[in-house]
Amino acid sequence: MRDDEPPRSGTQRVRIDLAYDGRAFSGWAAQPGLRTVEDTLAAALTTILRTIEPVRLVVAGRTDAGVHARGQVVHADLDAAAYAALPGRNDRSPERAARDRLNAVLPDDVVVRRVAAAPPGFDARFAAVWRRYRYRICDDPAAFDPLRRHDTVVINDRLDPGAMTRAAQRLLGLNDFAAFCKRRDGASTVRTLIDYSWYREDDATVTATVRADAFCHSMVRALVGALVPVGLGRAPVSFPAEVLAGGIRDPRVKVMPAHGLCLEEVGYPPDDQLAVRAAQARNRRG
Amino acid sequence: MRDDEPPRSGTQRVRIDLAYDGRAFSGWAAQPGLRTVEDTLAAALTTILRTIEPVRLVVAGRTDAGVHARGQVVHADLDAAAYAALPGRNDRSPERAARDRLNAVLPDDVVVRRVAAAPPGFDARFAAVWRRYRYRICDDPAAFDPLRRHDTVVINDRLDPGAMTRAAQRLLGLNDFAAFCKRRDGASTVRTLIDYSWYREDDATVTATVRADAFCHSMVRALVGALVPVGLGRAPVSFPAEVLAGGIRDPRVKVMPAHGLCLEEVGYPPDDQLAVRAAQARNRRG
Repeated sequence: MRDDEPPRSGTQRVRIDLAYDGRAFSGWAAQPGLRTVEDTLAAALTTILRTIEPVRLVVAGRTDAGVHARGQVVHADLDAAAYAALPGRNDRSPERAARDRLNAVLPDDVVVRRVAAAPPGFDARFAAVWRRYRYRICDDPAAFDPLRRHDTVVINDRLDPGAMTRAAQRLLGLNDFAAFCKRRDGASTVRTLIDYSWYREDDATVTATVRADAFCHSMVRALVGALVPVGLGRAPVSFPAEVLAGGIRDPRVKVMPAHGLCLEEVGYPPDDQLAVRAAQARNRRG
Repeated sequence: MRDDEPPRSGTQRVRIDLAYDGRAFSGWAAQPGLRTVEDTLAAALTTILRTIEPVRLVVAGRTDAGVHARGQVVHADLDAAAYAALPGRNDRSPERAARDRLNAVLPDDVVVRRVAAAPPGFDARFAAVWRRYRYRICDDPAAFDPLRRHDTVVINDRLDPGAMTRAAQRLLGLNDFAAFCKRRDGASTVRTLIDYSWYREDDATVTATVRADAFCHSMVRALVGALVPVGLGRAPVSFPAEVLAGGIRDPRVKVMPAHGLCLEEVGYPPDDQLAVRAAQARNRRG
């Protein structure tokens, strides 16, 4: 099954919303011999449906090793009969039964928030219109909350989120983000950056919100790495835009650690525009 | 050294504010063969001071195994010469040098927020006028944030924080909390409960604030356990006050899990009242 195929007959396409603590996972994408979110969720689905064929998943955001998610979205084409039979003798819906059974078999670092029959044309990857990520940095080591050390990066000097936001605004819009992407042959690095702002969440924590139509590999962490020197006063507000214009990876831009990053939300168009959106995205990035 | 001795000559009493993730600790109090916060901090102090005698600590809140802290306070009487020599050739204060060196040698689940010369009469335990704890419960398993599972307890049914607060208010004031305490021979269970309220922190999380002059063993977790049945509608608003009046442990009150609990803050009187307060508390609880 390729990503862009419509549901086969005899299957029910479902949308699954989930959250995970990325620490103990080697990222989303299945890899032989490694613990990944994709393998973990697919195995749980296969278990609760008792199907012979393993369940295949299509994901909105392929998070890297160590990256967290609170609003990840996937779709899967499930055996329609097995799915309909899930509630058993209870009067719950298949949606509710699937969610609760998944949470009962999943390890405690993955939580399924919702399972729902996908509207026609829905594709978790290609129908998405944006992905929103958050990055947390503590800029006062003595004020660091040890209870958040698994999703917060700590640095030794204070950041100026106002200057960081001013610099970040210059990156917005349709641009070639090659300077912030790991190169892959044949893949476009043109993306639309919709939001990129920084604010002080509490005395010691500065948070970035980054939203784009899509991201290439390690792009959010490089976008954060380009802004930290500005926040520390070690690079001018113009620095990130200069890196962007350069069009190649810049050694002054550090790709920030994975554990500060969390996929918070994926946006989709209204149901009647899902199919058109998916077709557009396939043509552009496929 | 007993808790209530004044600083010996040749020593400098310091106040240390710290935070810790309680998961990997067998509580605050030193125990042979177990990893405890007390042993960990004392060893770090002994290391940075290079003293022969191990540093002894007096703590405001003896947290149980698995309980977290963001606002724990301790005092220690340090070798004055070794403390004064901490900054070395740098121009930093001993306070700043002690804090930074402690954080450099401590494991990453303990963070020292501040080290300061203690004012005359300061005693971390006996001069404290109140301790404030927080307890976090998620009441919607599908909305549970896996990134907070180490400091949030999850239950299957929805809570009513309004009813819980109404019931909690009936416990306020000077009372014998024997019904909520693990019995220890000769120890008073009379405490003053200053605040006890519940509020909904977000869609899926309900949080308790509990503040008292002091707590006996497992008291906060029993106070939370007495309110959960009220929040679930399975016990009347009068239930916790009835348990209190009963004066003995009630099997209907579950002592809630440790990992939802965090010591957030310890209150002290103005400096000129520290000594009087410490003497009063020693007389009452010593």
